[in-house]
Amino acid sequence: MASSDQGSKQLSVAIVGGSGYAGGEFLRLALGHPHLKVTQVTSERSAGQPVALVHPNLRGRTNLKFRKAAELEEADIIVLALPHGSAAGRITEFEGKGRVIVDLSADFRLKDPEVFRQAYGEAHPAPDTLGNWVYGNPELHREELRTATRIACAGCFATSVILALYPLLKLGVLLPKDIIATGLVGSSAAGASSSDASHHPERAGSLRVYKPVGHRHTAEVQQELPGHFPIHLTAISTPRVRGILSTIQAWIPDGYSDRDVWSAYREVYAAEPFIRIVKVARGIHRYPDPMLLDGTNYCDLGFEMDMDSGRVVLMSAIDNLVKGTAGHAIQCLNIAHGWEETTGLEFAGLHPA
Amino acid sequence: MASSDQGSKQLSVAIVGGSGYAGGEFLRLALGHPHLKVTQVTSERSAGQPVALVHPNLRGRTNLKFRKAAELEEADIIVLALPHGSAAGRITEFEGKGRVIVDLSADFRLKDPEVFRQAYGEAHPAPDTLGNWVYGNPELHREELRTATRIACAGCFATSVILALYPLLKLGVLLPKDIIATGLVGSSAAGASSSDASHHPERAGSLRVYKPVGHRHTAEVQQELPGHFPIHLTAISTPRVRGILSTIQAWIPDGYSDRDVWSAYREVYAAEPFIRIVKVARGIHRYPDPMLLDGTNYCDLGFEMDMDSGRVVLMSAIDNLVKGTAGHAIQCLNIAHGWEETTGLEFAGLHPA
Amino acid sequence: MASSDQGSKQLSVAIVGGSGYAGGEFLRLALGHPHLKVTQVTSERSAGQPVALVHPNLRGRTNLKFRKAAELEEADIIVLALPHGSAAGRITEFEGKGRVIVDLSADFRLKDPEVFRQAYGEAHPAPDTLGNWVYGNPELHREELRTATRIACAGCFATSVILALYPLLKLGVLLPKDIIATGLVGSSAAGASSSDASHHPERAGSLRVYKPVGHRHTAEVQQELPGHFPIHLTAISTPRVRGILSTIQAWIPDGYSDRDVWSAYREVYAAEPFIRIVKVARGIHRYPDPMLLDGTNYCDLGFEMDMDSGRVVLMSAIDNLVKGTAGHAIQCLNIAHGWEETTGLEFAGLHPA
Amino acid sequence: MASSDQGSKQLSVAIVGGSGYAGGEFLRLALGHPHLKVTQVTSERSAGQPVALVHPNLRGRTNLKFRKAAELEEADIIVLALPHGSAAGRITEFEGKGRVIVDLSADFRLKDPEVFRQAYGEAHPAPDTLGNWVYGNPELHREELRTATRIACAGCFATSVILALYPLLKLGVLLPKDIIATGLVGSSAAGASSSDASHHPERAGSLRVYKPVGHRHTAEVQQELPGHFPIHLTAISTPRVRGILSTIQAWIPDGYSDRDVWSAYREVYAAEPFIRIVKVARGIHRYPDPMLLDGTNYCDLGFEMDMDSGRVVLMSAIDNLVKGTAGHAIQCLNIAHGWEETTGLEFAGLHPA
Repeated sequence: MASSDQGSKQLSVAIVGGSGYAGGEFLRLALGHPHLKVTQVTSERSAGQPVALVHPNLRGRTNLKFRKAAELEEADIIVLALPHGSAAGRITEFEGKGRVIVDLSADFRLKDPEVFRQAYGEAHPAPDTLGNWVYGNPELHREELRTATRIACAGCFATSVILALYPLLKLGVLLPKDIIATGLVGSSAAGASSSDASHHPERAGSLRVYKPVGHRHTAEVQQELPGHFPIHLTAISTPRVRGILSTIQAWIPDGYSDRDVWSAYREVYAAEPFIRIVKVARGIHRYPDPMLLDGTNYCDLGFEMDMDSGRVVLMSAIDNLVKGTAGHAIQCLNIAHGWEETTGLEFAGLHPA
Repeated sequence: MASSDQGSKQLSVAIVGGSGYAGGEFLRLALGHPHLKVTQVTSERSAGQPVALVHPNLRGRTNLKFRKAAELEEADIIVLALPHGSAAGRITEFEGKGRVIVDLSADFRLKDPEVFRQAYGEAHPAPDTLGNWVYGNPELHREELRTATRIACAGCFATSVILALYPLLKLGVLLPKDIIATGLVGSSAAGASSSDASHHPERAGSLRVYKPVGHRHTAEVQQELPGHFPIHLTAISTPRVRGILSTIQAWIPDGYSDRDVWSAYREVYAAEPFIRIVKVARGIHRYPDPMLLDGTNYCDLGFEMDMDSGRVVLMSAIDNLVKGTAGHAIQCLNIAHGWEETTGLEFAGLHPA
Repeated sequence: MASSDQGSKQLSVAIVGGSGYAGGEFLRLALGHPHLKVTQVTSERSAGQPVALVHPNLRGRTNLKFRKAAELEEADIIVLALPHGSAAGRITEFEGKGRVIVDLSADFRLKDPEVFRQAYGEAHPAPDTLGNWVYGNPELHREELRTATRIACAGCFATSVILALYPLLKLGVLLPKDIIATGLVGSSAAGASSSDASHHPERAGSLRVYKPVGHRHTAEVQQELPGHFPIHLTAISTPRVRGILSTIQAWIPDGYSDRDVWSAYREVYAAEPFIRIVKVARGIHRYPDPMLLDGTNYCDLGFEMDMDSGRVVLMSAIDNLVKGTAGHAIQCLNIAHGWEETTGLEFAGLHPA
Repeated sequence: MASSDQGSKQLSVAIVGGSGYAGGEFLRLALGHPHLKVTQVTSERSAGQPVALVHPNLRGRTNLKFRKAAELEEADIIVLALPHGSAAGRITEFEGKGRVIVDLSADFRLKDPEVFRQAYGEAHPAPDTLGNWVYGNPELHREELRTATRIACAGCFATSVILALYPLLKLGVLLPKDIIATGLVGSSAAGASSSDASHHPERAGSLRVYKPVGHRHTAEVQQELPGHFPIHLTAISTPRVRGILSTIQAWIPDGYSDRDVWSAYREVYAAEPFIRIVKVARGIHRYPDPMLLDGTNYCDLGFEMDMDSGRVVLMSAIDNLVKGTAGHAIQCLNIAHGWEETTGLEFAGLHPA
């Protein structure tokens, strides 16, 4: 796509599946984006109702009503915020409606249909189309995103892990030993549909290991990271609503130190607008903490070394719905249209929060 | 009932509707009660499953499995923990199974069928039986409870309000002006079934006024309290799972003071094992706080006066599932069987919690 | 002040007492405000340190460091974010530094020194200056604010109560009976200094009545509201960090109804950019809830009537640090400088949150 | 000590340092223990005040007042609940006061003074006495505890890790590869003193990595576990008040499976009254969760295997103040006096909680 779209003209956006949390968050961000104009939001369940009834933070911000997906009309950008597995089988239907398609689900993230089959337990319904999609992670794929018209937004847990590891693996700062990533995940990551597991009395005080092994994001982490290191994911739900904190245990070669980790992050991320290295010697906020990131597009990264063992503990925090989903998507769209990369993503986060 | 049941023999208990929170809490308390032996627990939804699957705190504490209510056999005590409106129509069915029946729902609390109709929106299915039931509040009905075989357990919000007001209304320490009770209620009060409203991301940070006017417990509060003062209830859900804190705004006659409130509470509640007056001049825990009561059968009461206006603010805290439901029921059973009134209700509560 | 300041020139802002929550929140908002440029932030305790060390949400957003108040230099706007009682005695010192002064404390809110003495327990140190200040509530004092150079920002609990009651009292929709306001308040309202009462294990699960009677905001509520109705405030701390939910119990004359409350709100607030009436018949978010307002400048108002008793329950929710403090101040500054009133206050709030 | 103390005679207990959370929890448990009678509780800060002022859950449960440690008189059992480093230098002072001494701090856990020096940064003040102490973990040291008069209670994070790993290391079910333990810890673990880090607004929503490397409990974990495997600890604070959830990543030899882990746990823990294996195929509570353990002495253990990689994820949950401190101590005392091991530790925990 050309990088000359910077005029005041707004591009029209249709959000398919806008009653969920990912779609709602994209809607919130797009409503505040100067170059985007949301013209359609679909929801089968809430068709006919004002979007503000489902997303009450948008009261007074929009008069849009949900329509059924069957009523979808053309738009410059189609954002698919459907449950995993729902978009892939219908992708040609959506491709007829808009030039740029952003998918927030896992349907188009993996390049290899066989890897998809293993991770998601069934054959991909449109394997031939997988090559058309760019993995929606600006820090790794900025150049491809500049001309992308198919963007498969990265998974939230995967994003926190990939962004922490990428510079170190790229620059060879880690040993080829097993890497362990433990993700503490907020309840919004499981979506907007209620269930026994999400019932407040069962969940409010819980620290629940919901995926000790076999997390599906392993596949995209392995696809995106250089080298062929074994990477193991464990996911635990916490009492927070938003946010992911990943702690990642890895190993550094003899002779390497803190300084090499610093250097790698600086070298790779120096110009990144949404990556902050948080490693502070004083005060109470010394490392990344999702508490500070609700509503923001930051990925905060930190680390600490155990020189005796060569172990390095990486820490990575994001808001799962922003940098983990909808904000990441906006950032990709900004790149794809040549807009200032931070447009619509300026919120600094709250303190206290 | 005789007061001579104090031997080591245990009475058998059947809990009907034991997969909910009220039934589960009664089960927990009964398992630790030396004179009770739970022999049956019913659940239509979970029939055949171990009760510890639904109530995981009871792992290793019981091997009981749920059965269907249709399989209910005789027991000394039948505890009905069904949704409101479910027990009344089937009460003769249960009366054939046990001598003592305790109902934890609202079905038999109101004496006047017409009041029931207004509060619950439909005619009572067994109006002639209402006179057989004792309202299950030991502080007001201890003597009746000694011989009771039908106990209709008091409502949780109602209990917190009644216990705070009863001594003051009985002894004429309040003016006949409108009384306002605001209840802050934990999420467990809405029961064990998940819903959109109880979905963790929608509820965790919420302060939700769910019943600003028209709360059904108004009827039992008015029935139980002396005088005919207008009493108004507002209920707000909080991020806590358990607990109710009621603040009650009332008015004191000229010439009355703090001291008269103290005296009234002391006179009426001096011998009560589960009422504590909490009004402390130092420290950080000066008034009743449900934080300290999870799992206990206490009702903590406090108050403060505004001498300029004659306003008195009463504060009342309980665990809605214990003093508000199952613990209250156990206390009633202890009285009805002549057992030490605190039996099975000894837990002191945690600090910090 | 002229309404012609709309050019791109930024006014310089000095924040005195910027390490607390009110000052930090003003800083966050001012950093995103196109017409403001924060040039100085003072803190005695943290002088010399980067502001982002104390307000970690501002990492990467500003390179400002705290200085001591003694080093304060001139600025177009001086924002005083000092503890209550600290600004009044030193006000001439600050008046020499800037043309416009905004005070976020309670020091200049009350017009009558005698009322101040009663509410705050000591004589006002500069009673002659009280007449210079405009009470910083745009909904009540917009016209005065247009030319104001001394703005005394409204108290947070007071704001939630005043905004709910003002239209109804102004238009005579309420009876002259006792009004009861119960405020559920987040922990940030007590400030940034740690204490035994704010220690997480003592506070996290607490519902703590901290001001059952005698709340100091009563004075400003009575000053600002028309009529001389008796108004009674009770304040309870909740597990939330931000936010106030006030429920207000009042009385409506015979023959009045819901519709009259609607009309009053519409008539008075129709053009208000930050007042929303929230009273929805469907869904789970039917009334105002502070959960939805973190970081926003909204005041959401709702109500429900009990036609039998003539009681109306008003509900009012704000973020205590935004509409209750720093956002309110920004809104006042926007008015005083003729800027678009919503400038810098566009954040919509999060859902889920 | 003899195992014939089972009579009704109660042993006197003095708690030194009873205003903290460990001492307060021991007090709560001891007040409910039929063979213990707490006769003294010391606190320098609160001397002269009722213990219920500091531990408000004990209102109505005890009339004890704090005294200064200098006023300590003899007792059958002395429980030291002092800050780490405070007991070791004064141990002879306490040894003169009672026959049995239980220390809840880290002062006497390590056998090797050099290991102590490395872990705690200073020389042990009484290195010659270290051999007198039994490490207070019943599952590993029950036989020694039967005759112990000096019991050094195990650390809370250490306990959760040791109990999960001990059977597997003892029976050779793990490979000698790096073991990673990630502990999610409640705020009570940092003690009862307030600080900036524990200030509610800074802590309530936080997921804070407070010890990514270099956790002091590493020393006692390594001392207690068989073999010389490298074990790495990372500690993260969560919004909970109580509880620890440890997830432990370890490696299983080829040819081993789930079944071998089951067997090891069963073989070693079959008769343990406070160990439960939680690994359930249905429902929402499938693995250990500290939510269910508040107030209980259980250690719940679970695990899951990734057969592809040979990785096993162990999960271990406790209440840090009960099985992690005071309950563990009571269990040790029960063993040392020949009492039923579960005496005073019967609380089942709450659901919901």
